[in-house]
Order: sequence, then structure tokens, then C-alpha cells
Amino acid sequence: MTARARLIAVDWGTTSCRASLLDARGNAIARIADAPGILGVGDRKFDEALSALVAPWRKTRGHIPIVLSGMIGSRQGWKETMYVPCPTGLTEIAASLLTVATSDLGEVRIVPGLDTSNADVPDVMRGEETQILGAGVVDGLCVLPGTHSKWAQVEGGRITRFATYMTGEIYAALRGHTILGRLMTEPRLMLEPQSPADEIAPAFLAGVRAGAAAGGPGALLHRVFSVRTLGLFERIPADALADHLSGLLIGAEIADAAHGGKRLITVIASDQLTKRYVAAAQALGLLAHGAPATCAERGAFAIAKAARLVSPVGAA
Amino acid sequence: MTARARLIAVDWGTTSCRASLLDARGNAIARIADAPGILGVGDRKFDEALSALVAPWRKTRGHIPIVLSGMIGSRQGWKETMYVPCPTGLTEIAASLLTVATSDLGEVRIVPGLDTSNADVPDVMRGEETQILGAGVVDGLCVLPGTHSKWAQVEGGRITRFATYMTGEIYAALRGHTILGRLMTEPRLMLEPQSPADEIAPAFLAGVRAGAAAGGPGALLHRVFSVRTLGLFERIPADALADHLSGLLIGAEIADAAHGGKRLITVIASDQLTKRYVAAAQALGLLAHGAPATCAERGAFAIAKAARLVSPVGAA
Repeated sequence: MTARARLIAVDWGTTSCRASLLDARGNAIARIADAPGILGVGDRKFDEALSALVAPWRKTRGHIPIVLSGMIGSRQGWKETMYVPCPTGLTEIAASLLTVATSDLGEVRIVPGLDTSNADVPDVMRGEETQILGAGVVDGLCVLPGTHSKWAQVEGGRITRFATYMTGEIYAALRGHTILGRLMTEPRLMLEPQSPADEIAPAFLAGVRAGAAAGGPGALLHRVFSVRTLGLFERIPADALADHLSGLLIGAEIADAAHGGKRLITVIASDQLTKRYVAAAQALGLLAHGAPATCAERGAFAIAKAARLVSPVGAA
Repeated sequence: MTARARLIAVDWGTTSCRASLLDARGNAIARIADAPGILGVGDRKFDEALSALVAPWRKTRGHIPIVLSGMIGSRQGWKETMYVPCPTGLTEIAASLLTVATSDLGEVRIVPGLDTSNADVPDVMRGEETQILGAGVVDGLCVLPGTHSKWAQVEGGRITRFATYMTGEIYAALRGHTILGRLMTEPRLMLEPQSPADEIAPAFLAGVRAGAAAGGPGALLHRVFSVRTLGLFERIPADALADHLSGLLIGAEIADAAHGGKRLITVIASDQLTKRYVAAAQALGLLAHGAPATCAERGAFAIAKAARLVSPVGAA
């Protein structure tokens, strides 16, 4: 017997797009993982791209509601959605879905982003809110590490505040465009290890501890220079310098974002990056674990349910 | 009457070279400011380059001792000098001059660099030690801001410790190779203002205060993202974003390096950069002033005197 499909959840980012066909409990019946991101869709033909993506499912299963999340709701995407101010949760986000008419899929919905525009310094996210709401965290910290790491505090199932850390992008800029990259020999260009088998290096953990050590914000401008001098004085081998720099930045990020450190940290990322962040958090005496890979579809499903796009289990 | 020349001081860096002909009190009789830096000397022909540089002075004035400082003493320069460990002062540095034989100038001396290799994390400088010793500071902090800002603590005329902050290079990497540069419209590519008339912008000073605000090292990874969001939310105009980023980094640097802030800060830099650092320090309630432009030649003269290369005033 084929499970009845209740929702199509599309996590549509800048460079990638993943679609999931979900049953009445939010479990995936089928997935498409390698569709083009918004930069890969020519002439902004998002209507046609989505239609082609979900056509096979729609053809055999009839009308199924569709919820899109991620950068598809940005100015560069299909249609710009609002930012819902933090603190916020499922109810407000569901009430702020943007409805877009399509040529042959009927109406689809785009999940809004979140902002903290009422804070001294505004911050924004778009797409991560859906994953956070799908991570099953009631009270704790969630981190989505990467180019721009997002750290969110969840209380009573609501996102009460969040902050962006430019860790991954700063790592790449330091590695590729400053003197720090000169002595490095290994091919690693991004924060993310090259293969799942990649072990956590001692130089990474030493970097984590040094990066998290006491000091003001400016200490980081000095501390990263140690990657050069530790290399020059051959205290760290050339093939471990990139790991050390990565550790310095991730250690500084975690120590700042998890201040106090009493909350469990849920890492929402690829297996490799999760391993790296969990090891870093543990090296700092913090409690961390990885989230299931289904956060985005689970989050979209929860939002769709709150918006009554999906009927409760057992209903017709 | 022509003053008697006692020393030729050459500040020979990676991209520029300045030579000064000094009298018995260390005052300049003549200067050459635009000679090629070590990267501009083909085939490492430093012997020939120096000879051509000082030939006119030697021709009319006979033998004059020559002291070189800066990256000319690095592995990429003429001959690599040692690093003198900190704390150190004129006596040890003068005793560690490297003597190099030349084809027609006799022996010349290269000033060694300094290091803190006995510290947990080593640090190095090469060339800045000469400027610091020539700044006339007995007790206080010296900063040589730029690509790699050097902060040195001077006590009893000796350099007791120092630290490098990658402020200028990180500014350029963030500006040129991350999302932070995208919204920026003004042409400023470096920390240094474009013209002496360049006013200190309010966005720069706001950045300085925000950059220096409390927080751990990781706070900087988050704080710089505000350059993006303050631009997106139009709280800072596009043409002031680069100034704001520059302020964030310089504020963080100064707050960390001047911790405590009870010592007078002497800024050794171009007029424009000095103006920027003095304004930033003052915005943080710190006392700062600019050093005379003659620090490098004054420092070389003091080292030469300590090495008895220059006879005391009044001697034959």
C-alpha cells in the first residue's frame, strides 16, 4: 500500500535544492536531493523549475500542498518574503507564509525569514528557522554551522534569539587571501573536512582551546597570527596549520555563542561538520549532539500543520 | 658649512626603502625616500642596489657607517638576521647586528628582528623594533598600525613585550573577499584613508565603540556581520560601511592591546593612519599621540651609537 502524501517540502537554497514528499506524520515517502539552487535557475524561472521538480509526484498523487523554505524567499529568489521578528514560533511563522500563484501547481507557500531588527544590531536568517523548528528542540541551543553559522536559542519550542557568526567565510578569506594560507600545504579550503573518515586532528582541538581562551573581541585579530608564527617556528607542522586555524575560529565562535554553556547544543549540519562541532564543543566541556538529517522537512511539515495546510492524522 | 655625516640609516622594507644621511646628533642632512623595496630588487642584487643608492653621499663624504633595518634582514632579503628575544633593548640589539661584506661599501650592518619565542605563542617583528627605539618612548605603549599592527610595551626604554594584530590584512580580506564588501560603494580598499583631508567619519567612531564593547574573542566573528545587516536595514549608508568595518576592527584591536589603558599610546604611522588611531583611542577614553616621522632614522642612529659605530658628539 502506498502511503498517502500530505505535503511537499522544498528546502531551496542559493546553491542547492532538496524536495521531500511527506506522509501524514511528516515522514518522507520520497526525496529529490540534487535539484538546482536559486542561482542555478536561469531567468528566474522558478515557476517552471518547481513544476518540473514535483511533476512526477503530482501526476500520480494529485494535489498536494507545497511549502518552500530558504533563499527562494529572498530578493534574489522567487518572491521576497518578510522577516518575522524574534522571539517567534510556529504560530507566527505559519501566519506569515507568503502565498505565490503558479502556472500549473496552484498556490504554493514560502516560509518567511526571521530577524532581530528590534535589537541594537539587526540579524537575519532565511531557511535556518525551518530547520531549527524541525530539530525537535524544546529548550536549548541550535547551531547551523558553515559559511555563516547561525546560533539560535530555543525556549519552550520558540526561537527567542539568534546570532550569525561569519566563521566559515572568514576562514576561507583568511586561508585564501592572507599570509596565513602561505605555509599551509594541505588541500582543505573550507571548514568542512574532506571526507567522512577525516579524523579530528589534535591541532584542531588545540586551536579550539586557544580560540576559546579568555580575551576581548580584539584578541582574535592577534590570535590568528599564531598560525603563521607556530608554522614559522615549526611548532605545528605545515599540514596541520589549516586545522589549527579552523579550530581557533570555531573555538572562539562556540565559546561566545554558548556563553554560560548550560544548554545542550544541537548541531544541524552534514555528518562531517557535525562531528567537528561536537568534538569542539566537547573539548570546551560543553554538551553537544547532532540533529537528524530530516530537520528541514520536519520543520516545513510542522509549519504546514500550524498553517492548517496539512490535516491532522486520521482525517480524510 | 656642511654638517659632518656620521651614519647612513636605511629602512628597507618589502615594498619600499628610505635612506637617511645623519649628522652627529642623528638629524637628517639628506634623505632618499623612494628607493625600491626588497621585492623591487631583481635577482637579489642588494649589494649593487645599496651601492647605487648611497653612492652620491659616499662620493662626496667618504666612508660613513651604514645600518640597515627591516625586511632586508629576512629570509627574502639580503641575509637573514637572528631574532633577539624579548624583553630586550638597545644594548642587546646593538650586540646582535649582522655584519655583511659588500663589494664597494665595506662592511654594513643589518639590525636583527625581535621575537617572543619563549612565550606560549611566538610572535615576531622585523624593522618595527628600530622605529620603536627611535620614538623616544621611555614608558608606554607603541603601536605601528597597518597590515600587521605591532603593539609594543616599552618600560625603562626597553621593549618588554609585543603582539601582532592582523587588523589591516583582515580588513582587506573581509572587504575584498566576503559578503561584507558587497554593499560597500566607496573606493577605500585599505585601512588607510585616501587623503590627508579625509575626515574621521561618525560611522568609523561608532564602529570603534562597537568593536571595543565587551565580549569574548568570538564576538568579533558575529560583530562584523553587522556591517551587512546595518547596510541591509539602511541604518548605515552604503558609503559609510567600509568606515564602520574599519572602526569595528581597529576598536577591537585597541581595546585588546591597550588593556587597562593607563599607558600613553604612541602611534608610529603615516599622518592619515595616525589621525585614525588617535581618534579611535580617544573615542575609547585612552590617551594617544602621534610619533615624529623620524622614528626609523632615530632608532637606527641610537642602535649605531650603542654599537659604537658612531662616535659621540664632539669626537673627531
